[in-house]
Amino acid sequence: MEYRKIKDEDNDGGTVSDDIENLRGKGFSGASVSNVPVREQSKWKRKTVVTLALTFLTSSQAILIVWSKRAGKYEYSVTTANFLVETLKCALSLAALARIWKTEGVTEDNRLRTTLDEVIVYPIPAVLYLVKNLLQYYIFAYVDAPGYQILKNLNIISTGVLYRIILKKKLSEIQWAAFILLCAGCTTAQLNSRSDHVLQTPLQGWIMAIVMALLSGFAGVYTEAIIKKRPSRNINVQNFWLYIFGMAFNAVAILIQDFDAVVDKGFFHGYSVITTLMILNHALSGIAVSMVMKYADNIVKVYSTSVAMLLTAVVSVFLFGFQLTLAFFLGATVVSVSVYLHSAGKLQR
Amino acid sequence: MEYRKIKDEDNDGGTVSDDIENLRGKGFSGASVSNVPVREQSKWKRKTVVTLALTFLTSSQAILIVWSKRAGKYEYSVTTANFLVETLKCALSLAALARIWKTEGVTEDNRLRTTLDEVIVYPIPAVLYLVKNLLQYYIFAYVDAPGYQILKNLNIISTGVLYRIILKKKLSEIQWAAFILLCAGCTTAQLNSRSDHVLQTPLQGWIMAIVMALLSGFAGVYTEAIIKKRPSRNINVQNFWLYIFGMAFNAVAILIQDFDAVVDKGFFHGYSVITTLMILNHALSGIAVSMVMKYADNIVKVYSTSVAMLLTAVVSVFLFGFQLTLAFFLGATVVSVSVYLHSAGKLQR
Repeated sequence: MEYRKIKDEDNDGGTVSDDIENLRGKGFSGASVSNVPVREQSKWKRKTVVTLALTFLTSSQAILIVWSKRAGKYEYSVTTANFLVETLKCALSLAALARIWKTEGVTEDNRLRTTLDEVIVYPIPAVLYLVKNLLQYYIFAYVDAPGYQILKNLNIISTGVLYRIILKKKLSEIQWAAFILLCAGCTTAQLNSRSDHVLQTPLQGWIMAIVMALLSGFAGVYTEAIIKKRPSRNINVQNFWLYIFGMAFNAVAILIQDFDAVVDKGFFHGYSVITTLMILNHALSGIAVSMVMKYADNIVKVYSTSVAMLLTAVVSVFLFGFQLTLAFFLGATVVSVSVYLHSAGKLQR
Repeated sequence: MEYRKIKDEDNDGGTVSDDIENLRGKGFSGASVSNVPVREQSKWKRKTVVTLALTFLTSSQAILIVWSKRAGKYEYSVTTANFLVETLKCALSLAALARIWKTEGVTEDNRLRTTLDEVIVYPIPAVLYLVKNLLQYYIFAYVDAPGYQILKNLNIISTGVLYRIILKKKLSEIQWAAFILLCAGCTTAQLNSRSDHVLQTPLQGWIMAIVMALLSGFAGVYTEAIIKKRPSRNINVQNFWLYIFGMAFNAVAILIQDFDAVVDKGFFHGYSVITTLMILNHALSGIAVSMVMKYADNIVKVYSTSVAMLLTAVVSVFLFGFQLTLAFFLGATVVSVSVYLHSAGKLQR
């Protein structure tokens, strides 16, 4: 299979902890700093920036959702908003490319023109997400919404397993332990008095949750495979083609689901300041995810979004007067230790 | 201070994972089995047996307590039961010594006669536990009983810290991470709908809980120090002297607390089959703790009793129809990973 080749072609697939290791190496012997290639340093900086950006954007995304729920029900059509998110991402990618073309000129790696061989796989993640979103309607027959939030943490495990199987990248035993802890810690942090309902989930519900976790994990890992298959290809070009398919899929969704409403009330009916902020945030988060896939990997993405979940809760205490539970503190402790172990596990390999 | 010497004198202070490491070494190269001293193998067996015994006894102790609570209120005097536990431990130590004297004869190491220098420190753990038990009455002014159960998990951290400071034994960074996880996992497993009350504990309650955890941890670590100070001394002799002081302290407790009741109703008033089983169990557990201190250490003891807590919950499902919560599964997962990391952390040092 094609994505099996990726491992060999990929010279850019180290995780953030790779670079933490490099950085520590630098720290130990100040004199050898000049021996470390400048390229390594700039790679590490780039990974750190995209990871922090993803964490910040994911966290503020959740806060915007809470804010919009407090402000009242969604009055706008979700399909038009999704279409605008994809369009905005496309536009931002093009803008970035225009700047690059100005400074570097058009090259083999940054030209927009592509081949069927390159783009044929680009719609696959979008299709996987579509199937997952369709399943989402059916799973609520077996699980309630808070239960589904808990089961979604299975994504962490599925991403780790598929990352190992499909991208053939190894995690050390300590890193696997850290990954199990990340899943347990995130779930613990979300525990509330109704969480035990999830244990009464019927077998069909469990199977659907596991299938959805696998689809979601597969889509993530497959996106990483696509992006890393051509390491020298400019990320903005790759993004542009990914988002073009996103626009196409969402245009179809508007036609099927919301055509009448858009014709009757107009495309932008019900849009507010919060809606605009959410569209902007989703677009930037989407680009940050692509960047993390290019310059880091799915494991970093999972850690980044998990830490964002904890940050969201802490920020919500100040913004919305939320109460933190003992379960949250315990889960946050376990997630913190997991982050440490992910890095320590790499160092000791 | 005297206990500072222990590290140097102690040739017997490795943890169970030391031996797991040895055992794995054996597994890797079958041919080299004969190179491993038979003494090492028998030491490992001894540690495993005492650790499993402690786990089993602690677990069945908790089950007996649940059973006795279901059977009705405690009708016997607790001080007489404690006195009988100490007496039984003394008797069992003497019986074990009698057997040893028959086969090996009386030597410098197994003779009962002692010096003031040897026994002068023996009452100290008993005094520490006494102070801790006195404080226990006062802490309930600030925390309720389920909250106290949660706060008791601070013992895990205090034992680790005092083990490091007083016995000067090092844990690797991974092992420290594992220890934090053990504390978080045990607490998570015990979470219930009322657990969040503990976050409202006033400062005095926190301070008392921390002081009690330190007293309890210090008593445990000090007992290990006493027992390991003379590695060649027979453990049954050391136990005999520890328990003699235990008998004395509990005799005083009877006189102060229950003298009238004992005179009026008799020493064995209210004793049942369960009471007898509990006394037997406490005596054997006490001896198992001493054995773990001699042949393993406080860290192994903490892991052993934590795993016992989880086993108790699982067994209670079958015996008493208890329901396991999602929090329990998450906590049990974290504790299991912690046990793995404690051993893996040792290997990679």
